[in-house]
Amino acid sequence: MISKNDIKLIRSLSQKKFRDETGLFVAEGDKIVDEALHSKFEVVNVYRKDEIGEDAMSRVTNLSSPSPSLALIKKPSLPSESDIEKIISTKPLALALDSLRDPGNVGTIIRLADWFGIDVIFASHDTVDIFNPKVVQATMGAIFRIKFIYCDLDTVIDSFNSLRMKIYGTFLDGDTIYNKDLDSSGLIIMGSESNGISDAIASKITDRLFIPPYPLGAETSESLNVAIATAITCSEFRRR
Amino acid sequence: MISKNDIKLIRSLSQKKFRDETGLFVAEGDKIVDEALHSKFEVVNVYRKDEIGEDAMSRVTNLSSPSPSLALIKKPSLPSESDIEKIISTKPLALALDSLRDPGNVGTIIRLADWFGIDVIFASHDTVDIFNPKVVQATMGAIFRIKFIYCDLDTVIDSFNSLRMKIYGTFLDGDTIYNKDLDSSGLIIMGSESNGISDAIASKITDRLFIPPYPLGAETSESLNVAIATAITCSEFRRR
Repeated sequence: MISKNDIKLIRSLSQKKFRDETGLFVAEGDKIVDEALHSKFEVVNVYRKDEIGEDAMSRVTNLSSPSPSLALIKKPSLPSESDIEKIISTKPLALALDSLRDPGNVGTIIRLADWFGIDVIFASHDTVDIFNPKVVQATMGAIFRIKFIYCDLDTVIDSFNSLRMKIYGTFLDGDTIYNKDLDSSGLIIMGSESNGISDAIASKITDRLFIPPYPLGAETSESLNVAIATAITCSEFRRR
Repeated sequence: MISKNDIKLIRSLSQKKFRDETGLFVAEGDKIVDEALHSKFEVVNVYRKDEIGEDAMSRVTNLSSPSPSLALIKKPSLPSESDIEKIISTKPLALALDSLRDPGNVGTIIRLADWFGIDVIFASHDTVDIFNPKVVQATMGAIFRIKFIYCDLDTVIDSFNSLRMKIYGTFLDGDTIYNKDLDSSGLIIMGSESNGISDAIASKITDRLFIPPYPLGAETSESLNVAIATAITCSEFRRR
């Protein structure tokens, strides 16, 4: 069974305001719900279509057709500054997202980062909320394995820098990524869909990378989608 | 100015049925409209917000906010069987999409294929219509440069095979792509979001590829998004 109040609550969670107020978010689909149940996240409740009925499910779903299952999940607590310093001190290979706004792109990036063993993603405060249902769905469950940290990117960059790790970013005038020596730790910055990496952050990048079109100098698309560029970059860092 | 009939026509083109009936499709945004005007496609009309007004534009747009410009464009004529044979006889590196349904994925794949100089994309008849507005937008203009051919994939595979070109596909039990010799011509088959490559087509693949997670054997996402897998695969074929 599902109460009217539960339906109202779940529907409200498509808005960030109510996710922030309640500290809850929603994940849909058997696979993602199953991953939530086997994760460190606290699952408050699971609703299944064969228990609450197709009608109730279609009222709470964020998808075009009602899912077989939906979980109500607690957002994890935010890491403190000392938590962040601790993470950086392990010298990870990490991603940093500079003002990414598209939920599908961010969800896809979380999924591929998980694939490539990049367990930490930093993001500027104006990056889309990862508990947005569209992000959660696009991660296909990877959201429950990755550390995703909203922060001041400047501070994080300085911390990586002070530990002598490199700061990488992709630019149209960078060095061809295929020929670069890429370290096994460092920070890879990905810029926003419309504006790329912001100037203030670009000035702190130590290694400018470029994914060349084929053939070099061909008249092609002006750029690659940010999730696509992230995928190729992560693959290059991890290929042996 | 824009007439009531034009508004009705443009709105109808969000549906495949009406795109097929009229032979027209829509592209939005200054960049894409500009690319259409400089392409071989026949642009029937361009509507600009500062000419027809914000109100009219918001009635015809497929986007969340009205674009500065929108073009009404003729769909190109379908290639004949002999056209297709001719294209294959040039021994290209080509993609083949097996039942891809997500417009964003297909649009993103067209954009990245263009970047990597892969000028021909074959697709099974049940792949999403590329003149769907969501596909057109995601290509960012690459749709005007790429040959996209709906066809029977079986026949195309046989043609590549008879010219002794390889048929590539990605599988979870394939050979690590980083260590494979990849030819500069051939057919790369990408499977559907939910089911992967269909069995009938999988049996015709000569070279099974695998994008390994890092570290190998790690507990990660079960798979990569199909546009992401396509990007890494194309990058590997083109990297020098």
